[in-house]
Amino acid sequence: MTTLVEPGRVPAGTGGPTVKRIGIIGTGIMGADHARLLTSAVSGAAVGGVFDLDTDRARGVAESSGGAKVFTDPYALINDDDIDAVLIASSDATHEDYVLACVAAGKPVLCEKPLAPTVDGCARILEAETAYGSRLITVGFMRRFDPGYTDLKALLATGEIGAPLMLHNVHRNPAAVPGMPSANLITNSAVHELDITRWLFDSEITEVAVHTPRPTGNSGGTRDPQLLILTTASGVLSDVEIFVNARYGYEVRCELVAETGTVTLDAPPPTSVRRSGLHARELPADWRPRFAEAYRLELQDWIDGTGRGATAWDGFAATFVAQACVNALESGERYTVEMPAIPGLYRRQ
Amino acid sequence: MTTLVEPGRVPAGTGGPTVKRIGIIGTGIMGADHARLLTSAVSGAAVGGVFDLDTDRARGVAESSGGAKVFTDPYALINDDDIDAVLIASSDATHEDYVLACVAAGKPVLCEKPLAPTVDGCARILEAETAYGSRLITVGFMRRFDPGYTDLKALLATGEIGAPLMLHNVHRNPAAVPGMPSANLITNSAVHELDITRWLFDSEITEVAVHTPRPTGNSGGTRDPQLLILTTASGVLSDVEIFVNARYGYEVRCELVAETGTVTLDAPPPTSVRRSGLHARELPADWRPRFAEAYRLELQDWIDGTGRGATAWDGFAATFVAQACVNALESGERYTVEMPAIPGLYRRQ
Amino acid sequence: MTTLVEPGRVPAGTGGPTVKRIGIIGTGIMGADHARLLTSAVSGAAVGGVFDLDTDRARGVAESSGGAKVFTDPYALINDDDIDAVLIASSDATHEDYVLACVAAGKPVLCEKPLAPTVDGCARILEAETAYGSRLITVGFMRRFDPGYTDLKALLATGEIGAPLMLHNVHRNPAAVPGMPSANLITNSAVHELDITRWLFDSEITEVAVHTPRPTGNSGGTRDPQLLILTTASGVLSDVEIFVNARYGYEVRCELVAETGTVTLDAPPPTSVRRSGLHARELPADWRPRFAEAYRLELQDWIDGTGRGATAWDGFAATFVAQACVNALESGERYTVEMPAIPGLYRRQ
Amino acid sequence: MTTLVEPGRVPAGTGGPTVKRIGIIGTGIMGADHARLLTSAVSGAAVGGVFDLDTDRARGVAESSGGAKVFTDPYALINDDDIDAVLIASSDATHEDYVLACVAAGKPVLCEKPLAPTVDGCARILEAETAYGSRLITVGFMRRFDPGYTDLKALLATGEIGAPLMLHNVHRNPAAVPGMPSANLITNSAVHELDITRWLFDSEITEVAVHTPRPTGNSGGTRDPQLLILTTASGVLSDVEIFVNARYGYEVRCELVAETGTVTLDAPPPTSVRRSGLHARELPADWRPRFAEAYRLELQDWIDGTGRGATAWDGFAATFVAQACVNALESGERYTVEMPAIPGLYRRQ
Repeated sequence: MTTLVEPGRVPAGTGGPTVKRIGIIGTGIMGADHARLLTSAVSGAAVGGVFDLDTDRARGVAESSGGAKVFTDPYALINDDDIDAVLIASSDATHEDYVLACVAAGKPVLCEKPLAPTVDGCARILEAETAYGSRLITVGFMRRFDPGYTDLKALLATGEIGAPLMLHNVHRNPAAVPGMPSANLITNSAVHELDITRWLFDSEITEVAVHTPRPTGNSGGTRDPQLLILTTASGVLSDVEIFVNARYGYEVRCELVAETGTVTLDAPPPTSVRRSGLHARELPADWRPRFAEAYRLELQDWIDGTGRGATAWDGFAATFVAQACVNALESGERYTVEMPAIPGLYRRQ
Repeated sequence: MTTLVEPGRVPAGTGGPTVKRIGIIGTGIMGADHARLLTSAVSGAAVGGVFDLDTDRARGVAESSGGAKVFTDPYALINDDDIDAVLIASSDATHEDYVLACVAAGKPVLCEKPLAPTVDGCARILEAETAYGSRLITVGFMRRFDPGYTDLKALLATGEIGAPLMLHNVHRNPAAVPGMPSANLITNSAVHELDITRWLFDSEITEVAVHTPRPTGNSGGTRDPQLLILTTASGVLSDVEIFVNARYGYEVRCELVAETGTVTLDAPPPTSVRRSGLHARELPADWRPRFAEAYRLELQDWIDGTGRGATAWDGFAATFVAQACVNALESGERYTVEMPAIPGLYRRQ
Repeated sequence: MTTLVEPGRVPAGTGGPTVKRIGIIGTGIMGADHARLLTSAVSGAAVGGVFDLDTDRARGVAESSGGAKVFTDPYALINDDDIDAVLIASSDATHEDYVLACVAAGKPVLCEKPLAPTVDGCARILEAETAYGSRLITVGFMRRFDPGYTDLKALLATGEIGAPLMLHNVHRNPAAVPGMPSANLITNSAVHELDITRWLFDSEITEVAVHTPRPTGNSGGTRDPQLLILTTASGVLSDVEIFVNARYGYEVRCELVAETGTVTLDAPPPTSVRRSGLHARELPADWRPRFAEAYRLELQDWIDGTGRGATAWDGFAATFVAQACVNALESGERYTVEMPAIPGLYRRQ
Repeated sequence: MTTLVEPGRVPAGTGGPTVKRIGIIGTGIMGADHARLLTSAVSGAAVGGVFDLDTDRARGVAESSGGAKVFTDPYALINDDDIDAVLIASSDATHEDYVLACVAAGKPVLCEKPLAPTVDGCARILEAETAYGSRLITVGFMRRFDPGYTDLKALLATGEIGAPLMLHNVHRNPAAVPGMPSANLITNSAVHELDITRWLFDSEITEVAVHTPRPTGNSGGTRDPQLLILTTASGVLSDVEIFVNARYGYEVRCELVAETGTVTLDAPPPTSVRRSGLHARELPADWRPRFAEAYRLELQDWIDGTGRGATAWDGFAATFVAQACVNALESGERYTVEMPAIPGLYRRQ
């Protein structure tokens, strides 16, 4: 089938679609994947421009995105009139500057987690957005769009299993950089469970503790695995096994324990195989197949402007609690989380 | 977030998206669902026009599809210059005429199954498309896009479990019209397994038989359930339990048995619940949640023009084999399927 | 802990246990396993004597059974005053003579399936037992004691899922003798499903058909796998996949389809393993681990004299229906099973 | 089938079975169940005598156990010449006295857990057995015989998944006495996981902590559920969710996390049901169906004198660690377990 409609052929007022042109900063694994989804699987979006420190890499993504413009200056991309919104998938340390530039330009921005690696950086962003006066920032905690997690939250809301009491989380990656700082397990990986715990129970985390077994021989000295114990203001206990050298595969599971029943999220693949004495389901090698649908729905929601994604406040809170967990890991003590009050901009209407 | 881009604002040559304007004929459950997907979950598509015998129903779908034009004549829709391609979701008996009109207009058409209810009707369509000289028709056998079925076919292709020998299929609906003709179980429901068997094994069905137990007390006299036994030219045996008054829920499963292993498709939902003495996964009430992803991918593939969908020949073959199964049901005998030769247009390049 | 009680120390009338001394004919894999269970896992039993054509093999089993007597003549064993009951686990062709000798001696006998390989042989046994006037014979269809099958029958009896309509059976072995006669799949393996179908539905099988795909390349010419279609007098359809060169492992499963629900028996092991990219449960290599509990319960029931095991009539019927299936396999036709009337001795009281 | 062998008919030296006559103290739910198993499902055992404070209850169990003698004095039972070994299933507070009387009488004794409710009581028992000079005492930690747990330990021993790092345990009962002391969750229920952790890793527990969410509204004030964190001398972290008012059913599960893989014990029943929109497996209402096989194997092992059961030292250690957990629950602090050295009698040979 040949292409039947030229770009722009749909005139206003005939029921044609609204198309948002997205500028992407950072075209590594995540950025390239977002470009692919925006181009081929999201309604009402197009990649309008890309920037990467590696211009060749940016050019490749631009080509497979239908001929998007390649920028050599990220701030030029942010401020370009033909860019309607910005997606930030560059290295963590650069997030703050780019997000602040988007706010200054008054442009919607989807920033991959973390919003910023430090509490201070996140606070500066909150300040800027509050000064701007309305929400422009979405943080890429994509699990909020995963059909399994949304099922979990929906089932909890029915009240059929009573009030929540505990959440047991397992988060495993096959391999990490040997000798990686032990704090990174929290700030890079378990931060997803910090966000999910806050989101699922609509309650802030107020106390944390971290327990560790002897480390696996495969971590090169990193304290891996770790067991985080989080307590919410509402009294729910959420424990998180984070294990980044689990070797056997990638896996994210949880069980929500409520007063009269529990819900388990394990997201089995649609098929199972009987072979060589085993009846087995395959496990993915990394997070992309597991959360492919979550990323697509996150992007569609962002393009639609529905606003179900994580806010800058959520980004701040995740970094704040992660820092408390790092303190608890280092001290071996239970640690009370003294979060500042939520600014008015982020309160529920 | 407000809408930032006006329709048509993306000029040609700037990397903007190509948008196809789809005309939908029939806006019942299926047509309305396709309209929703085209509007909100498919890249590069828009609903350009709709027709339904019930004009109010058409108007409702047009409004929720971004203001598509409402047609009162389906042939006017098919021939309208602002309609790039047509999706037929009207009653089975109307399919042939609309498909033929699309071919006459030289427009790509996606026709819900069946292509036509009779072998003769399908043959007339093959003739028309062959005369046109290139493929315009796609038949809506959406299971070919279901991630479970595509996993199954991909795993078979690896050769890891050897050559296929048998396929056990289960296809259950909770309830059907009491006293419905017994043949309808085959022509309306099991026809999906006829297509899947042909597609999975790349081989035509050459022999069929139908066995039936005593009917369920809930069918109002219909011979329900039935067990179809299909044999392919390549020697694979595919049995199909079709049960349209299974009461407990909707379910489609299969197990592919090969020389050194088997693959089971059961598509469990991502969560399970422990409650009231049971550890359970929910089953859907009908086919829509089960095949939601298949429908989305089918539409995206059609819009992209990738051509992985079922052809008119596949639609013909499904109707032809279904007719043989109906004969086998009525006679109680094994029945050899004497399919005509595949026209050149439909041979693999 | 040392042995504290000498054999025979429990005097009559003090509440001590009743011990039956069992004579075992045939000490191959099955006979040796029965000896082990009777000695170490069944209450109220002891192995009193053993016979095998291979006297050394018999001697080994006698020793590990607490010093049972080794017989060199099976009829001497049957007629020995110190043998209270006989277990026959010798080759199929010998069953008839030994069972008839047990009846002549008036001794309870548990005969491994088949009761006899031919319909005529089974008929002679029915005649002898009928002449004797009360039931002495139990046939080793151990699946009737498997907790999974008894769950299935119990759940059906509750009426919670309505009347039964279909039973889908899968019966797979990893490997068989290459070039084995195709009929053996039915007479040696699927015969278990013939018995289970009769037992589960309390109804005789009245019609059979056999369908076959092209055989697996691993069978050496045997028509393997096969699909048996059985219809009971009560109108239930029971299909059986029998596949004796399935390679990947041993597996017996079924799904019972009733009017408002289904029950699946798949007997998963208690643990699952995550390793090398798979989440897997192990499958056994042969039937022994799968039916270990069924064998123990069958023996305990036989020792207790509860009489829940298969009768000589059940043994006759299984052989009779198996013969009809062999005819159906060879002719390719549906085959009506013309079973003689059940003798009065075997009617339910 | 009638009873063919009179009690005592099997003469010494003819390969007949050795029968141990067991005296049972306490014929409540547990004691009656043990009597049933010893009478009808264990080889080489008989109930020789029973005692209960409720003599009628004792008489009922004696009758269904083949006419065992009813004692009105538990010490008379222990010292009776016709009682070869003693099983204690009376109330926890009575265990110490009865066990000491058994040691004094030089009789093997199987004592239900706990060995004694206090550390001091356990210590007095260790002293008495050490003075006696050989092991007479087995403690009823039946999980050590559960096929799931033994699979787990066997798989760990193969080394295929590397060294153990964590064990996640879930232990749920549907309902407990409202307002029950919070410590009882540990001493009565989680004590099983304390034993399993020690047994599985062959390592003592050296540190404990207890975290609690807000209690369920169904506990009448008891701190329920609780999360115990145990660390072994070998560095394994074992967390235990104990929840005695989980309402939905009884469940014991765990996942063992090792360096290159994990093993999950969930012990699914053999069948699953599709009904009313759910695909479900039934959960038991209490521990008895879940651990029926473990109890049978525990008793058979005890009767056989194989000595795989928990020793008095294991009983002491479980009570000792449970006490440390109670301290941790009450203080909210991590707590180091300062266990005395293991007496020579209990060291591995």
